[in-house]
Parts: sequence; C-alpha cells; structure tokens
Amino acid sequence: MTTYVAVCGSSIGTEEELAWAEEVGRLLAEAGAIVVCGGLGGVMDAAARGASAGGGVSVGLLPGDDRLGASEHLTVALPTGMGEMRNALIVRAADAVVAIGGEWGTLSEIAFAMRTGKPVVGLGTWDLSRSGRSTGGIVLAGSPSEAVSLALGR
Amino acid sequence: MTTYVAVCGSSIGTEEELAWAEEVGRLLAEAGAIVVCGGLGGVMDAAARGASAGGGVSVGLLPGDDRLGASEHLTVALPTGMGEMRNALIVRAADAVVAIGGEWGTLSEIAFAMRTGKPVVGLGTWDLSRSGRSTGGIVLAGSPSEAVSLALGR
Amino acid sequence: MTTYVAVCGSSIGTEEELAWAEEVGRLLAEAGAIVVCGGLGGVMDAAARGASAGGGVSVGLLPGDDRLGASEHLTVALPTGMGEMRNALIVRAADAVVAIGGEWGTLSEIAFAMRTGKPVVGLGTWDLSRSGRSTGGIVLAGSPSEAVSLALGR
Amino acid sequence: MTTYVAVCGSSIGTEEELAWAEEVGRLLAEAGAIVVCGGLGGVMDAAARGASAGGGVSVGLLPGDDRLGASEHLTVALPTGMGEMRNALIVRAADAVVAIGGEWGTLSEIAFAMRTGKPVVGLGTWDLSRSGRSTGGIVLAGSPSEAVSLALGR
Repeated sequence: MTTYVAVCGSSIGTEEELAWAEEVGRLLAEAGAIVVCGGLGGVMDAAARGASAGGGVSVGLLPGDDRLGASEHLTVALPTGMGEMRNALIVRAADAVVAIGGEWGTLSEIAFAMRTGKPVVGLGTWDLSRSGRSTGGIVLAGSPSEAVSLALGR
Repeated sequence: MTTYVAVCGSSIGTEEELAWAEEVGRLLAEAGAIVVCGGLGGVMDAAARGASAGGGVSVGLLPGDDRLGASEHLTVALPTGMGEMRNALIVRAADAVVAIGGEWGTLSEIAFAMRTGKPVVGLGTWDLSRSGRSTGGIVLAGSPSEAVSLALGR
Repeated sequence: MTTYVAVCGSSIGTEEELAWAEEVGRLLAEAGAIVVCGGLGGVMDAAARGASAGGGVSVGLLPGDDRLGASEHLTVALPTGMGEMRNALIVRAADAVVAIGGEWGTLSEIAFAMRTGKPVVGLGTWDLSRSGRSTGGIVLAGSPSEAVSLALGR
Repeated sequence: MTTYVAVCGSSIGTEEELAWAEEVGRLLAEAGAIVVCGGLGGVMDAAARGASAGGGVSVGLLPGDDRLGASEHLTVALPTGMGEMRNALIVRAADAVVAIGGEWGTLSEIAFAMRTGKPVVGLGTWDLSRSGRSTGGIVLAGSPSEAVSLALGR
C-alpha cells in the first residue's frame, strides 16, 4: 500500500530548509511514497521539485479557489477554496508529517497531526513545551534521510 | 496547462453508467486531463479504471478519515474526513464536471459546479426545471466521447 | 430538545419569496426552533428578520472570512471562510430544510439534505426529475405555515 | 458590533481550568461578547455554562454529524461533520481566542489564530519556541478577568 507523507513548511523558507525539503521530497519519491503539501512556494515547491526529480508523485492542496501560485513541479494541484483551513486537509490526506522549519501554519499542521495520531518528524522546527516541560510528540531528525526513514517507519 | 475534470456518479451505477464512466475516464486520460472523483466504487471506480487504462492520472477525494473502500485504480487517494461535504471539494478541484447518472450526491456536485461557474456535462443524469421550465445549465451529451469533448471545450 | 431548521433561498429573492421567508422565520421562532441560514441578504436576511420578530434565535453561516454583508437581524453571524462549500455546513447544522425559491446554491442545499437523509420542504422551489420521472423527495408546501409544520414534523 | 471570542481547551480539563473557563465565559457574556467553542465537555462546557450564567450567548461547533455529547449550556449547538478540522472553523468564527490549558487540539487553534492574525490570550497554556527562542505571539494572562480584558482589547 502506498504511503502518503505531508511535507510542511514556510512558503518562503531559508536556503537550508529548501535544500532539506527537496531532498526529503526526492527520497520519499524514491521510496515509493506520495508527497502531499500545500502546493505553493518555498518548502512546498521544493518538496514537489524533489518528488519530481525522484520520479514520484506529489499532490498540492491549495488554499485558494484556483491554481494561481501553484508549484509547477506538482503532479496534481487541487484548489480547495478553504484558505488556511486546508492545512487540516493536508494532514488528513497524509499518513505522516515531516515539518521543516515553518511558521504558524506549519505549527497548525503539527498540532493536527498529533491530535489525530499521526507521526510528526521535525527538521529544525518548533520546540513545544507546556508549563515549562517539553511535550514530546515530535520526533527530531538530524538530516533529510533520517527524517524520511522516521516518517516511513523504517 | 493541465485540465482537471470531475467524473461524478453513483457508488453503484448501472452497467451502462459504469461503461460510460470507464470510457470517459480513458478518453480524458488520453487527452492529458486529470480525472477527479469521489474515490469510492461504482462510477468513481470505473472512471479511475478508465484513467489508468488511458495511461493517465486520477485523484479520489474520499469522504472518510482513511482509505477504506478507495478504488484501487486511483493514482492518488486522499481521505478528507468531511463526509458528503467533500462533494464540494471535488467540484472545487475541477475545471469541469461530467455527471453520469447519479443520485442526490451527484446532484449536489452539479449544483455546486453551476453555482461556481463551472461547465457541467450530463450523461443520462438529472433533468432540472424550476416552476415547470427547464433551467438549462447542464449540457447533455449523447456519448462518452461527446461528453469529453464538451468538458474539455473542444 | 431544540430543533434547528435551515431556511435556504436566493440572496436577492422576489417580494413573495422574501415575505414567505420572513413568515417562515417568525413561525419557526415562535415554535421554539432555531433558524439556520447563509447569513447574507434576500431570503436569508428575511428569515433572520422573521426569527427576530418571533423572539427567537437565528444563526448565519457566512461564506467569507469576515462578517461583511451579514444580515443585521442575525443572533449569531459566523464567518466560515469556505465560500459556497458552507452550503453543506448549513445543512449539516440543521435537522430539516425549508427551500424558498432559490438558484443553484439552494439546489446544492436541497441535494445535500436529501443525500444525508434530512427532510426538505419546498416553497416555489426546484422541480426535480430523472429520466423524465419526478424524483419525489422534496415535500411541497402551499404556504409558510404549512412549510413550518412539515419541517417540524407536526 | 458584537465581538466573538473563542474559548479553547481540553474536553476534560483540571478543576482550575474549568473554573477559569467558566469565569471567562461569564465575563465575556457580561461584556456583551458571544462565546464560541468546540461544544463538547470540559473547558468547552464550562465556558458555555459561564456564558449562560452571565446572561449571554454561546455557540458550539461540534466535530460530529449530530449533537451527541454537546454541552447542554450552549445557546446554539451546530454539528459540522468535519472532525478535528472544525478547530479551524472555531477560530474563523471568532475575533480573538482565549486558550485555557489544552492539548494538541488547543494548539491547533492557537496556531490557526496566529496564522490568520487573530489575538490569542493564554491562561496556563502552551509555551512556544523555535530554535530555543520564545516566539511571542500568545499574550499570557494571569487571571480570567485579565484574559477577558486582553481578548476584548480593553
């Protein structure tokens, strides 16, 4: 059965984040997984580019009513018309989440994934604590290849 | 630019409807269009099977939280967890809709498409009138190949 | 237990439709039911105005990200940011639907209600048939008071 | 113009959190604001109970298809059928968010609110940092009354 992995992160992203996202996308595609993302620029575009380079399939769930601003590297670009609410849809469509850097949108995806019992792997992303104690939950990876192994449960 | 066409119809479907859906899916794929559907059985499964036979890509937007019951012919199967509300998402993701036979769910897709200004092509589907007068709106096709030509605006 | 009834119709509406919607809203409120609607003008606004006149509660589920254009007669106005997809949410929130006149948006609400097993009462609304035969499903009312009785199952 | 404030927190909640939520709900109602919540138990129920005690209006946006498990203190209980995705809807419906304690679901609401530019006031809730630095964003309140003042921008 095909595994679907969401790659989440900023629509801008640092150079390092973009390189990570591209490698994560490529390694997921080479492992036969389908990449799900928010379909726009930055980390999303880099993940789709990587999936394409790896000969795989990527799906972008876009916030708007049309495909304006969609990454050209996506296999499938789907307008949702739900705005930021589509972040929850990205998580729903995936079996695991790789969070790379990221701002509030990425945090919403991490939280939805944790809430619905899906593994979250982090690369340079949010540190979460409650009442001063770390919450656990997010598995930290040191590299794209480690992130992909963890996301695929290998 | 890739065109996305939703193929909508019953999760059961008559033999004729399934044959139509398979041919519509195949012709769309051969024309380079991506098939979007509800991802389950009947007309949805037949459309995905046709897309696969035509060497193309199909996307199923599933009503549930997981891929249970998804057509095995889909390229991409995405759980939405939105129940029947995902019908609106199918239409949002598409540039045109082909309605084949169909029950109330299909009618909701026809109505959403008309409401949001997307062409609807019908094969043996709903006749709509208001106050005894036909509403127009749905373009009736006499065959799968005509339906595909109309949906692709050719 | 409180009953929730959706009142659906055009954002413009004829004079007759607006008068019907206001009376339906008022009668629902007087019967202790909560009115749910799309929150904008026309039939939606008239239903909210009626609910207010009847001393009751009305809820508007708005398509946009904010309350711009919301009826001032609503007790509660909720932006959904889901565009026309919010029609499915209106039906989900209701126990029965009264459709008054209406265009494609109203038809989407009728179809969702029928699909999810909720009673639909029509006042001068869509006639539906398949393959030339009437589908049944929508219960036609001759007046606002009959529509309210039917919607409340009385 | 009426202000809508979401009160978010666990469906269980500690005694302290429940007391806070009830007081926040009551103070919001007394200030004329409408309370929006997830409509179930724990912090959500306490907020609705408080709003009722303060003579105000509360709205619960429920995850399921029906009103099963809805707080009996709600003025309006709306099934959404969207599961946890309804957290995004709660934030969309509100002008500001008060987060009380809370688990991953509450974190998703905080993140959505920050992403869409809505003020978030926290009472004993998540501490957020990125790369070891606190992110700012959530305004911490020391008491229910301070939380309400901050949420209402007073």
